[in-house]
Amino acid sequence: MTDDLARLSLNTATTKKWTLSEAVDGAVRAGLPAVGLWRDRVAEAGLKTAAQTVRDAGLRVSSLCRGGFLTAADPAGVRAALEDNRSAIVEAATLGTDALIMVVGGLPDGDRDLTGARARVADRLAELAPFAREHGVRLVLEPLHPMYVADRAVISTLDQALDLARPHPADAVAVVVDAFHVFWDPNLPHSIARAGREHRIASYQVCDFNLPIATDALLSRGMMGDGVIDFTPITRAVADTGYTGDIEVEIFNADIWATPGGEVLTTMTDRYRELVLPHLTPE
Amino acid sequence: MTDDLARLSLNTATTKKWTLSEAVDGAVRAGLPAVGLWRDRVAEAGLKTAAQTVRDAGLRVSSLCRGGFLTAADPAGVRAALEDNRSAIVEAATLGTDALIMVVGGLPDGDRDLTGARARVADRLAELAPFAREHGVRLVLEPLHPMYVADRAVISTLDQALDLARPHPADAVAVVVDAFHVFWDPNLPHSIARAGREHRIASYQVCDFNLPIATDALLSRGMMGDGVIDFTPITRAVADTGYTGDIEVEIFNADIWATPGGEVLTTMTDRYRELVLPHLTPE
Repeated sequence: MTDDLARLSLNTATTKKWTLSEAVDGAVRAGLPAVGLWRDRVAEAGLKTAAQTVRDAGLRVSSLCRGGFLTAADPAGVRAALEDNRSAIVEAATLGTDALIMVVGGLPDGDRDLTGARARVADRLAELAPFAREHGVRLVLEPLHPMYVADRAVISTLDQALDLARPHPADAVAVVVDAFHVFWDPNLPHSIARAGREHRIASYQVCDFNLPIATDALLSRGMMGDGVIDFTPITRAVADTGYTGDIEVEIFNADIWATPGGEVLTTMTDRYRELVLPHLTPE
Repeated sequence: MTDDLARLSLNTATTKKWTLSEAVDGAVRAGLPAVGLWRDRVAEAGLKTAAQTVRDAGLRVSSLCRGGFLTAADPAGVRAALEDNRSAIVEAATLGTDALIMVVGGLPDGDRDLTGARARVADRLAELAPFAREHGVRLVLEPLHPMYVADRAVISTLDQALDLARPHPADAVAVVVDAFHVFWDPNLPHSIARAGREHRIASYQVCDFNLPIATDALLSRGMMGDGVIDFTPITRAVADTGYTGDIEVEIFNADIWATPGGEVLTTMTDRYRELVLPHLTPE
């Protein structure tokens, strides 16, 4: 591990074709200290084996993706969501990360009531937060870009995520600043400063916003430098809060998934050094 | 014209294949009192002829689309934008509408500085507002959905539009509430109420947000009822401000453009009666 990469983490979604073990090896070879894990890769390897593999490689787990999908309105859907999130909390604790990323879910089929869905998210968080805290895990609310409000996450801004977190201790419910999802927000500098004051920033994730928007809109995430995001003000705002945690790179992109993982990691570390690292020192 | 359609306006973009004259005839046949005009259709017909055609048909012009694209950073680009917007202001006045819809523009090529672009919009508005006011025309700022922040409009929320309008008299700079662009905003009820208090609502536009997002993201606008928007709370919030102006239907959608205009107008009036009209009376 080289010092300048001391906070850079590879999210396994970026190298989608790699197994967990291959991603861990790739991260070690690239000199990274951490990986962000998706639950599907963990399940493939088996939870205990996954935890052991990461630990044996000397890596941190910067976050587990993902819990959430809390917006069901029917009793069976609510029960299933609570059960699945309790499992995810236990998995996060077993993997040695305190950050469970929460994509809270969109509207149920045929439902158009955003206010109701947002209220249900608040209710489910109240039910899950004590359990998470007992396990030393934070529920990390992810505001998603508003283009996903109906089908992925009814949390669309960092301020809204902080409002939902507010009833809970900061060691139970936190937020992630994902540049792709929030770069457009004219209120972003204030929201990031607020998140810092409230001790809620559990993760900073970077990737670019590519144009045109991909045919599958989920795949518009791009390598830093390939899209329209200026990482300077966002990174500075995060650094100015005193955040000293990992910076995770999570990219969903068909071209990047078709590129050999080693090449992706070389580009990723280069772009991180060029576009993010220089702004990580508080001013 | 039937009473229940007394505030419904056809934006000519919805029936894209129709000339201005055909759109005016179609609106009259459907019993509508107003049309929203795009400048390309006006230019085809000739400005004076267009004004005469609408007047002779006994219709109002609810708005002219569009001015804007104010984010150029180079002197020639700035001059061109000012000149084009002054022309649009004169066109609006000639057509007898006081509402010039402003799509303010995205980032210049290769530029990633949203803060700078937003500051240039404020500067251009200061240069244009007195001219607009002299002509009895309001510059109507349109917040666009955040997925268009980089390539269409650096104004992404109604609150941001109101902040940009604030230095100017309400009869010079106003805002439009377009359901497609703002329905996701968790702060929307407050923003609409604020827009009302500040006397800035110049237009209310309705269309749906279709999923999946169209391959050309601009074409995801759908007929009311076909997408994910609940028009009830938005319409009520607008009505509660005391807004009594026209409700314009502006849809960019390949399937709708391929449908005969008369059929589109039948569906449009049906859906308006079902989904919007019942909520237009202040509570």
